[in-house]
Amino acid sequence: MAIDFTLDPDVEELRLRVRAFVDEVVRPADARIGDLDRVDERDEYVKILIDLRVQAQEAGLWMPHMPKEWGGMELGHVGLAMVQAEAAKAQWGPWALNCMAPDEGNMHTLLHWATDEQKERYLRPLCEGKAMSCFAMTEPEVAGSDPTLIRTHAYQDGDEWVISGHKWFISNAHRASFAILIARTEDDPDIPQAANTAFLVDIPSDGWTEVRQIETMHGSTGHSEIRIEDLRVHQDQMLGGRGQGHLLGQARLGPARLAHCMRWVAQAETALDMMVERSLDRYAHGSLLAEKQGIQWMIADSAMELYQAKLMVLHAASKIDAGVDFKSEVSMAKHFVAGMLGRVIDRSIQVHGALGYSTDTPLAHMYQHARWARFADGADEVHQMRIAQRTIAAWKDHGSTRTATGDLPL
Amino acid sequence: MAIDFTLDPDVEELRLRVRAFVDEVVRPADARIGDLDRVDERDEYVKILIDLRVQAQEAGLWMPHMPKEWGGMELGHVGLAMVQAEAAKAQWGPWALNCMAPDEGNMHTLLHWATDEQKERYLRPLCEGKAMSCFAMTEPEVAGSDPTLIRTHAYQDGDEWVISGHKWFISNAHRASFAILIARTEDDPDIPQAANTAFLVDIPSDGWTEVRQIETMHGSTGHSEIRIEDLRVHQDQMLGGRGQGHLLGQARLGPARLAHCMRWVAQAETALDMMVERSLDRYAHGSLLAEKQGIQWMIADSAMELYQAKLMVLHAASKIDAGVDFKSEVSMAKHFVAGMLGRVIDRSIQVHGALGYSTDTPLAHMYQHARWARFADGADEVHQMRIAQRTIAAWKDHGSTRTATGDLPL
Amino acid sequence: MAIDFTLDPDVEELRLRVRAFVDEVVRPADARIGDLDRVDERDEYVKILIDLRVQAQEAGLWMPHMPKEWGGMELGHVGLAMVQAEAAKAQWGPWALNCMAPDEGNMHTLLHWATDEQKERYLRPLCEGKAMSCFAMTEPEVAGSDPTLIRTHAYQDGDEWVISGHKWFISNAHRASFAILIARTEDDPDIPQAANTAFLVDIPSDGWTEVRQIETMHGSTGHSEIRIEDLRVHQDQMLGGRGQGHLLGQARLGPARLAHCMRWVAQAETALDMMVERSLDRYAHGSLLAEKQGIQWMIADSAMELYQAKLMVLHAASKIDAGVDFKSEVSMAKHFVAGMLGRVIDRSIQVHGALGYSTDTPLAHMYQHARWARFADGADEVHQMRIAQRTIAAWKDHGSTRTATGDLPL
Amino acid sequence: MAIDFTLDPDVEELRLRVRAFVDEVVRPADARIGDLDRVDERDEYVKILIDLRVQAQEAGLWMPHMPKEWGGMELGHVGLAMVQAEAAKAQWGPWALNCMAPDEGNMHTLLHWATDEQKERYLRPLCEGKAMSCFAMTEPEVAGSDPTLIRTHAYQDGDEWVISGHKWFISNAHRASFAILIARTEDDPDIPQAANTAFLVDIPSDGWTEVRQIETMHGSTGHSEIRIEDLRVHQDQMLGGRGQGHLLGQARLGPARLAHCMRWVAQAETALDMMVERSLDRYAHGSLLAEKQGIQWMIADSAMELYQAKLMVLHAASKIDAGVDFKSEVSMAKHFVAGMLGRVIDRSIQVHGALGYSTDTPLAHMYQHARWARFADGADEVHQMRIAQRTIAAWKDHGSTRTATGDLPL
Repeated sequence: MAIDFTLDPDVEELRLRVRAFVDEVVRPADARIGDLDRVDERDEYVKILIDLRVQAQEAGLWMPHMPKEWGGMELGHVGLAMVQAEAAKAQWGPWALNCMAPDEGNMHTLLHWATDEQKERYLRPLCEGKAMSCFAMTEPEVAGSDPTLIRTHAYQDGDEWVISGHKWFISNAHRASFAILIARTEDDPDIPQAANTAFLVDIPSDGWTEVRQIETMHGSTGHSEIRIEDLRVHQDQMLGGRGQGHLLGQARLGPARLAHCMRWVAQAETALDMMVERSLDRYAHGSLLAEKQGIQWMIADSAMELYQAKLMVLHAASKIDAGVDFKSEVSMAKHFVAGMLGRVIDRSIQVHGALGYSTDTPLAHMYQHARWARFADGADEVHQMRIAQRTIAAWKDHGSTRTATGDLPL
Repeated sequence: MAIDFTLDPDVEELRLRVRAFVDEVVRPADARIGDLDRVDERDEYVKILIDLRVQAQEAGLWMPHMPKEWGGMELGHVGLAMVQAEAAKAQWGPWALNCMAPDEGNMHTLLHWATDEQKERYLRPLCEGKAMSCFAMTEPEVAGSDPTLIRTHAYQDGDEWVISGHKWFISNAHRASFAILIARTEDDPDIPQAANTAFLVDIPSDGWTEVRQIETMHGSTGHSEIRIEDLRVHQDQMLGGRGQGHLLGQARLGPARLAHCMRWVAQAETALDMMVERSLDRYAHGSLLAEKQGIQWMIADSAMELYQAKLMVLHAASKIDAGVDFKSEVSMAKHFVAGMLGRVIDRSIQVHGALGYSTDTPLAHMYQHARWARFADGADEVHQMRIAQRTIAAWKDHGSTRTATGDLPL
Repeated sequence: MAIDFTLDPDVEELRLRVRAFVDEVVRPADARIGDLDRVDERDEYVKILIDLRVQAQEAGLWMPHMPKEWGGMELGHVGLAMVQAEAAKAQWGPWALNCMAPDEGNMHTLLHWATDEQKERYLRPLCEGKAMSCFAMTEPEVAGSDPTLIRTHAYQDGDEWVISGHKWFISNAHRASFAILIARTEDDPDIPQAANTAFLVDIPSDGWTEVRQIETMHGSTGHSEIRIEDLRVHQDQMLGGRGQGHLLGQARLGPARLAHCMRWVAQAETALDMMVERSLDRYAHGSLLAEKQGIQWMIADSAMELYQAKLMVLHAASKIDAGVDFKSEVSMAKHFVAGMLGRVIDRSIQVHGALGYSTDTPLAHMYQHARWARFADGADEVHQMRIAQRTIAAWKDHGSTRTATGDLPL
Repeated sequence: MAIDFTLDPDVEELRLRVRAFVDEVVRPADARIGDLDRVDERDEYVKILIDLRVQAQEAGLWMPHMPKEWGGMELGHVGLAMVQAEAAKAQWGPWALNCMAPDEGNMHTLLHWATDEQKERYLRPLCEGKAMSCFAMTEPEVAGSDPTLIRTHAYQDGDEWVISGHKWFISNAHRASFAILIARTEDDPDIPQAANTAFLVDIPSDGWTEVRQIETMHGSTGHSEIRIEDLRVHQDQMLGGRGQGHLLGQARLGPARLAHCMRWVAQAETALDMMVERSLDRYAHGSLLAEKQGIQWMIADSAMELYQAKLMVLHAASKIDAGVDFKSEVSMAKHFVAGMLGRVIDRSIQVHGALGYSTDTPLAHMYQHARWARFADGADEVHQMRIAQRTIAAWKDHGSTRTATGDLPL
């Protein structure tokens, strides 16, 4: 029978190479960066980051997700899962390998939707590590999960499009040299989802103003608010066709969501490792924490949920690789892994006590960051709605919900 | 890369054959049995049951778990998962295919531990569908999960062993022609787990008394209380060696637990199918239930948990098939699938309202039965303890919990 | 300050009298009834039940909820809470005191809505313990929580009303000498809720047919299915005015729901007592269950939730007594206490292991019964909707949700 | 009957006066402080804070918890609950009324344990608002919940005590003019809990070194790490007797924990108000959020839990006021209200989406702060252990858990 959960020895060997690179190169860089003052020692900070990428390229660990002709490792999504989960064990791991969000998703998008000219101008520098990008869809005034509500609009004026609107939580906009921008172009589309179009916008551009980097629970870490006023782009800057903005967004988001999950799995594993270590180190009320039934439940529940997360990510990745419909699997993975991440970190903090609340361990920052996971790329509630709708549709089509629970042999 | 979640076409074809057999043969038999009075129409009842097995054998669907030389389909555990999940869609499906508990687990046990003579005498009739069996371990006075506490004891008297003790919740004892009985034989074992020994006991035997069939939440469905007084068995009836009772029990329980999970997956899928059907049929407060966000959450959470259960069962089965350590994976599957089963059925009942509480649908009986799952073959709390201990051990051995979360490539 | 959670000494004295009556009179009767065969020994069964009531009347413990002029104790709802919680510690306690559902709620209803003639004919025998009653609202075809959907309809024919329809889960109908029946009389009401009217129907009557007692998870315990065909009642049998059926139902259900909660509190306390007793008696894996952290969590969570339930019931009762709006408080109590009951019993069963699954303890039956609590008198989902709507309304009215969280001084 | 959940009209009038003061005086001050740069505009910052207190004193709203002879309002704990819950609706409300942690708890402690000389020297300035204080018990090396583990130790040298040790998470130490310091003085106490003694330590003192303000998830907000080396205090600085440090700590912590709960109730009400407001303002997928069943569940669950929290706080406060044992009630309140706070804020953030993650609303900071509640003054796990132990003890003493679930009339 074909069911198989193992990897070929040469792929396993690759995993160990990534792990060694993270341990030997990235982690020490993380530590050096942590000691820097990023304002006063900005040059040193940039130097370390660039140097990391040079070393990754030299080690042949560059863009696991991209085809070899673009300089990548052409691994497929199962292989990517393995590499991302290793890379994300260190803070700057995905950066080093040039597979961090949102650039990774934008590379996929450009690869599949861009014209040859657009690829040369925008994808090439991304792949070479010479540029960064952002994806500008979310708006403060309307629910991000409902694309029919987008208010940023574009009208045609000769061979140009003139765009106005308001975006926020545009990750990476502060550092990006271009944006993929979603705007409403169709007043009366055939279906409500076909109203929007994607455009490639150079940064800086007249009419594109960064209002601020939004301060969040997790500090001010690169989510920008953007005001767009009479921004003019040539019609050649349209990415995909008119009205295909939603389609492009969905195509981009599936794998991008799963890539988040791969990195979150790494974070959760770190939190669980720390939980176990602490429980073996802390004594109270007559025994080690590790010997107490309730603490064991926290460890067991975390191990089980992390195990489930890994299975889900692997299965969803294998569906993407197989070229079959993966929407339900990715929705379920996104929803579950984001929640699992929060729960495992929360338990690890509780086992650490006051120490876990301090920033003396990385758990406090991980906790703040994990809260974001339950909104990012679709709030929990939106994924639950989609999962339910697909389950109902499966029952309507086949008289059984089976195809909506992974369409597995069981 | 080798990761693969699909089955070969010929195996998939087998799945469809089981499904067809269940739909066309077993379900109608279930319905006829449901209409019978089992006391007044006992002959008809027995006739239907025997006839089911004859038809399964003729269809080549007999003992998916046993080697071909014993008349089985020799499928391995992944294949077994597929077949059990199809068979358990009907009440008498696993019976028809001769793969129901506890006979299925006892066949595995005899295959691996019995002498040739013991196999001929006990395994052969099981495989031919001419006998049934039970496994007698649990005792009312002590916690079943802690084998060091077992009080039923045996002493040697010439070439016989003399056994006395008290057992309960011995499933199938009422219909069995023999028991695998666990008793303490060693007063001072090297390790506490090596105190018990397994014996093959013919039923009836002098000294083996069925006190009652215990009435439970789910009716009086074949869990017996047994009083054992000066029961004598010849030393040739020992199964495995002295002090190996716990080892044998553990070896038996791993796959047996997973086989429970396979059947529970089928039950949960039935409950989810019914939940969706009802939600499309019931209107209240301005919309169909299927259109309400909260009901959608109940559907989505159920689909997600069932999906996770399927992945876990497949993975644990693949580990058993691969001959590698599967204890953690089976513990996690047993614990999660049992709880999932209860939650999905509970939600389905809630969506059905009062109808779900009545026995007009099968949900009420499924609910009562599912409560048992959280004790059967190890209570939740015992599995959580074991999962935690293995997670802690992994961290101690490798500095990482990774091997305790499925030892997956991610 | 006036905040006070204690009772006057004479009321506390009453509580102890109820407790003594339950311990000394009801519990022994429970035991005798449990040993009877209710078919073969029906006379003895009836004799014990009648005798219980005679003794309660002699002890001055009769109808805590009714005014003294009707022979009751006129305690108010806070006092009733105290008495019900004591009485329900034994199975037949509320019966003995004539304060069990649905008669208790029907007495309230008749007291407030019936004409003098109706009171003499229907309320008097209830209060004297000479008759029983039922409340016929729920229908199999439509959601019970949405009164605008009721299909049973009545049309006027001279001075009679002719009623046809289909009801089910009509508790006590099998033993009742009359029903309060809800039927649609208005085709085009001013508001959708004003379509229904209540009627008093003698049992038996032509056109009132008990189809069956519905078998449920909890056995066949007196929930009947009723077919109503051209049932004729004189217009004097109308209870309340035309179109006031919903109003009457709501007025009835508030206190009736709370009375359920009072009895459920008693059940949960029994389950918690048993959980603690078992945890002190059972040893596994190196310690008593009571010494294990996880088991302690199960005890602590149960104690906390039972504590909350008691506070909620007392507060809601004090609101009814004070004559102020109590709908939110009763909804919150009903929803929470029903769920709490199920969780506490479930934990107690888990701590008992297989014994808890058997009917050797009362827990198994309590578990089946408790599942009903989450539908009875409004499913969880309906109460959650109402609580949310009232919270939203509070915010709209006052700019604060404060009045929807008990309107407490805090 | 005496059960009463209402307040006398004059007390209710006081509540409204506090509310008006918070709305008219404190909230505008909060806003002005929020706009300040606390480093560059420190003088203005201090001026606003002092001015707030002057106005509170002038308004007669000063120290609700202290006797009139010390300048307080002498309200008792029920009255305090009411005032704290109003005051904590604004960030600087409890500061303004001089009833914030840890000074409020320290005042209680000094009032009951200090000598007259100690009261004049330490309590007087606290009551006059001229000094601040801290309570130094927690240590980084050992579990704070287990007082037998405290390592800071003191030995007697003539009429002085010489103290050495290591403390952290000492709230307010940075601003305090004295500390109540817990150190081990007894090598071989009669009972393990009688090893520690409290001392009054002036700040600054030789041997008392603030190592740092610990950075936490919630910023660097006044939790200090303290190194104590050969710190000498005169024997007159002992607070309470030798070996009474644990007793004093427990006596202090009960009401102090409840005072936290009072303020947390205010925070949760703010979060719920915001949740409802947002749900009425945000549209997605065809309806307002407030109209969706799932969002309604989030509102209903939050309302219900906040309602329970209020009932618990009132009841525990009434027990303290009545002079009866309140330990179980305070443990249950502390454990539940802390968790409730986190859940309500979490739901409110989820309903706000990305906005809730930003610091554009106060929810993000509230979320970080709320995480602390589950450790502060006893971690969840410690309270659960204590609640269970008291429930088990109740059963042992009375054959019923009743006294451990509030000892209510029900």
